[in-house]
Amino acid sequence: MSWSHRVQFYETDLMGIVHHSNYLRFFEEARVDWAHRQGFIDYQKPKSASHFAVLETRVRHLKPAFFGDLLKIEIRGRQDGAKFIFQYRLWRDKEWLASAETTHVALDEKLKPMRLPKDLCEKLEKEIWKETWL
Amino acid sequence: MSWSHRVQFYETDLMGIVHHSNYLRFFEEARVDWAHRQGFIDYQKPKSASHFAVLETRVRHLKPAFFGDLLKIEIRGRQDGAKFIFQYRLWRDKEWLASAETTHVALDEKLKPMRLPKDLCEKLEKEIWKETWL
Amino acid sequence: MSWSHRVQFYETDLMGIVHHSNYLRFFEEARVDWAHRQGFIDYQKPKSASHFAVLETRVRHLKPAFFGDLLKIEIRGRQDGAKFIFQYRLWRDKEWLASAETTHVALDEKLKPMRLPKDLCEKLEKEIWKETWL
Amino acid sequence: MSWSHRVQFYETDLMGIVHHSNYLRFFEEARVDWAHRQGFIDYQKPKSASHFAVLETRVRHLKPAFFGDLLKIEIRGRQDGAKFIFQYRLWRDKEWLASAETTHVALDEKLKPMRLPKDLCEKLEKEIWKETWL
Repeated sequence: MSWSHRVQFYETDLMGIVHHSNYLRFFEEARVDWAHRQGFIDYQKPKSASHFAVLETRVRHLKPAFFGDLLKIEIRGRQDGAKFIFQYRLWRDKEWLASAETTHVALDEKLKPMRLPKDLCEKLEKEIWKETWL
Repeated sequence: MSWSHRVQFYETDLMGIVHHSNYLRFFEEARVDWAHRQGFIDYQKPKSASHFAVLETRVRHLKPAFFGDLLKIEIRGRQDGAKFIFQYRLWRDKEWLASAETTHVALDEKLKPMRLPKDLCEKLEKEIWKETWL
Repeated sequence: MSWSHRVQFYETDLMGIVHHSNYLRFFEEARVDWAHRQGFIDYQKPKSASHFAVLETRVRHLKPAFFGDLLKIEIRGRQDGAKFIFQYRLWRDKEWLASAETTHVALDEKLKPMRLPKDLCEKLEKEIWKETWL
Repeated sequence: MSWSHRVQFYETDLMGIVHHSNYLRFFEEARVDWAHRQGFIDYQKPKSASHFAVLETRVRHLKPAFFGDLLKIEIRGRQDGAKFIFQYRLWRDKEWLASAETTHVALDEKLKPMRLPKDLCEKLEKEIWKETWL
């Protein structure tokens, strides 16, 4: 699955490149889009997205991104016991700019860890990653 | 002209609504898109967007925006002597959520005020705003 | 009353100056500090700050601010019927960089407009602004 | 060395906690302060901070941070060949909320990798980390 993000002026810093903290925001955009498509998030219920708490993030920067760049973010997710792991690759055309991994647990609306519905888990469990992204 | 923005999770605050500072970022997105379509900004030349310095901003909030909302931003621009004035209306479907006005001057790459090419000015000068947006 | 803010690297943009949307964040910092000192906000109760919804913001930029600048923000607040009005002046040493005005209503925890306790109102009502900041 | 950050309203999200992308900003604040104290950054020369490009970031979240929290960030840095490695621990009083590691290279003003002055390197090389922070 993939997500596109056009780099905005306000996402740059005085080095003239995208500030590194914004990459976590781009990856969140891709993750939310993924969750929305999988049926985890309903945009009509504003709090439904609180289901994924962030346990860990890891980002590797290969090349900088610039104002106006159209970034393409590939994302893949899988379940790992009680956790969810997502990996990302960020591209500008055929240039690989960054990769990342984020680890999450699902929370209910009171911020308590929760199990996800069985049918969703089954769908995710089957995914095997052979290729290395990070 | 209009621009669309899907509200992201990271644009909300603990009140559960879009933080007010982000509206200026949405309006900038619309303004950059406007400038790009008018030929003022070339995405291939990263510094070309520095042409509009912000002199004044004014935002009126009518209703809050929420995570996942698809916002539509109408924008119109005109020249006022050495200044540029943009007005914006921000909608969620048929609900009017906010309006705004921003005032700018054009700067060259060394942050010095500059005149814009005559043909662009002529195009802008002709626009008259009868309707009130603010 | 006044508040100090050291400009961070991540608050700059590719023009090498502080992005204009961040000024609303600096003014919020000053407003929260003001509210905290007046007893409106209790840092131990995270949702107590939701009391001020933003109705309108207005910022005038006189000179840019740069990375590393130590900004001083003067703030004054007063009640205007059901509304609260704050005005701000932002300085770097003796240089006046920006001024602003924000208008608010008080909300309870369910985002419903509410009246503030009488003793607080009485304290605010007395303040008269003779000098022009904006 | 340590740095303090008071959590601002605009740094929270709709879960009522600090958005995870902001942690990279807090760590940058600590790193810039560290660099400033070591003589790497001169606040009077706005572009002097561009010396550290970000190669990799890694953050582990143990507990959430809330609006109004006074965070304390411990930082330590060392040279590793051509790279700089920083580690961070983030506390609220005696509660350990997060740890992180960021990897950097030094760049000159034209964004080219550069060697740092010998005397600074010598100072950094000597630091040995026995304790585990991550």
